[in-house]
Amino acid sequence: MPLNKGFVLASRPQGAATEDNFRFFEREIGEPGPGQVLVKNLWLSLDPYMRGRMDEGRSYAGNQALDEPMIGGTAGEVVASNDPNFKPGDKVVSNNGGWQLYSIQNPALLRKVDDSKVPLQAFVGPLGMPGVTAWVGVNRIIMPKAGETVVCSAATGAVGTVVGQLVKAKGARAVGIAGGPEKCKFAVEELGYDACVDHRAPDFKEQLIAATPNGVDGLFENVGGQPFARTMAQMNDFGRIAICGLIASYEGAEKTTLSDMRIMLIRRLKMQGFIVSEFLSDWPTALGELVTLASTGKLKWRETIAEGVEKAPSAFLGMLKGKNFGKQLVKLF
Amino acid sequence: MPLNKGFVLASRPQGAATEDNFRFFEREIGEPGPGQVLVKNLWLSLDPYMRGRMDEGRSYAGNQALDEPMIGGTAGEVVASNDPNFKPGDKVVSNNGGWQLYSIQNPALLRKVDDSKVPLQAFVGPLGMPGVTAWVGVNRIIMPKAGETVVCSAATGAVGTVVGQLVKAKGARAVGIAGGPEKCKFAVEELGYDACVDHRAPDFKEQLIAATPNGVDGLFENVGGQPFARTMAQMNDFGRIAICGLIASYEGAEKTTLSDMRIMLIRRLKMQGFIVSEFLSDWPTALGELVTLASTGKLKWRETIAEGVEKAPSAFLGMLKGKNFGKQLVKLF
Repeated sequence: MPLNKGFVLASRPQGAATEDNFRFFEREIGEPGPGQVLVKNLWLSLDPYMRGRMDEGRSYAGNQALDEPMIGGTAGEVVASNDPNFKPGDKVVSNNGGWQLYSIQNPALLRKVDDSKVPLQAFVGPLGMPGVTAWVGVNRIIMPKAGETVVCSAATGAVGTVVGQLVKAKGARAVGIAGGPEKCKFAVEELGYDACVDHRAPDFKEQLIAATPNGVDGLFENVGGQPFARTMAQMNDFGRIAICGLIASYEGAEKTTLSDMRIMLIRRLKMQGFIVSEFLSDWPTALGELVTLASTGKLKWRETIAEGVEKAPSAFLGMLKGKNFGKQLVKLF
Repeated sequence: MPLNKGFVLASRPQGAATEDNFRFFEREIGEPGPGQVLVKNLWLSLDPYMRGRMDEGRSYAGNQALDEPMIGGTAGEVVASNDPNFKPGDKVVSNNGGWQLYSIQNPALLRKVDDSKVPLQAFVGPLGMPGVTAWVGVNRIIMPKAGETVVCSAATGAVGTVVGQLVKAKGARAVGIAGGPEKCKFAVEELGYDACVDHRAPDFKEQLIAATPNGVDGLFENVGGQPFARTMAQMNDFGRIAICGLIASYEGAEKTTLSDMRIMLIRRLKMQGFIVSEFLSDWPTALGELVTLASTGKLKWRETIAEGVEKAPSAFLGMLKGKNFGKQLVKLF
């Protein structure tokens, strides 16, 4: 029996999360029970939603239990199986393999994937939950028309990476917001954003206005804070706002505020908060499109890889501060 | 030729509107031109949206021009007609007869009405723009299901009056918010609201919580301000918020704020600002339903009537402060 290692949630953050909120564990994983599958987690996905789950309050995704392995999407390989549809060596993705080397899974929650054309870890990134999140926000909430302008914050993050490319595919103008000139350059030169504005620039507001000469018809919000407020002021009549994440406000420091609700009325805006797991019927369509794009080399993305499960907490805390560049992964083996 | 009397917008308000912003006029109306219709305006509707139009800034309904008769829906009678479809004596409703005794109208913008079963002025109230506004917010945005709870502010106003009754017809719980015990009593005893909370009560918050034991699934917002914020805190997962008006914020005194956007995400809310004139294709259906209800005595409403066109400014300013009780009208003749 392999030795499992990973992290449980030790305590709930008071304000900003710290490494002390996680506790390392090491123990035998045990055998899979009847109908279960033992998976070796090769890749762990780190995602902002996890921060919300660490809090005690009512969260959009349910709470992470204390002393249980931290939740996390994983891509891995079947090691032992008591289900006839899975055999050792199969590559599988799970929405909750957790922050650990091994997991025993209910096969109904495993997705078999073909990593012959794209690397396995893409299935927890652009071809997984973050990619489907982008797809749902773009196709089910913003629904950009050709010639419209869509702004996306955290433009080089796991979700924003895909948002820009989906928006461009609709014939709309894609404008990114990202932290720093390096990320902005990547957004434009590699991801195909028409423009990208650095939210740390002192003249952010002027740059945003210059980048959206026809106003903003759609906003894919991943971050919140002041850049959100500034972008709201640029919204056109009948604009759509998909609230996907508010990472700037997750640590309690900076609330994201809509300081004058009249803009919702004056410009007849639609705003919707969403969580991708509640759009289950869209997953096959979204994944089908994304896998096709990726297999033909038409989908670009970038990864930041932390090596070893021990690095999961520090990589996660760094991601909350925007230190990652592209999809944040942990390579477990 | 009859002598026309009415009010033009003399100046734009600085903060709260005052009677000085309006200027009385008296002049001959003139003859209707080719294809036009001369209408004697019997009833003028006073509505909160007019306040927005008085401002210079980008408004949701376009600006009211200075020195032109104030915009306003009217119900009246054809006096002279150069259109074969309209003859003297026909009862007609217009979305812009204006704050005046007579208007020369383009017949394409006139709606002929049958006032044999309901009083003529109902066609600028529950059977007119305010009624259709209620219908659109309920049926196109909130879409209440049986057993859900819908809160409506300004519950005894022209729109709120109809909202409660449409919500009840869907089998949902209707909870009103109104100013003062008399209006709340009327909302429950006459309009059929299941409960009504006085926003002036010192324990408003506790009363609202008591009145919405299962939370709030839909919010029809006409007012804004603190009661809006308190109601938002009661929203259930997947709640819908129709932003119809924010009258508390029209005079610049009190902004309506969403102080923490995370509620949109955590509870996956949908919020939409709307203006009824942009739902043109819904008008026939909505009016058909409302007229049927009214003709069979199933729709209740109440009116506050100011007598004489000279009273229009004071009645309008009073309405902005909630002094009206039910639909605010001016009886012009």
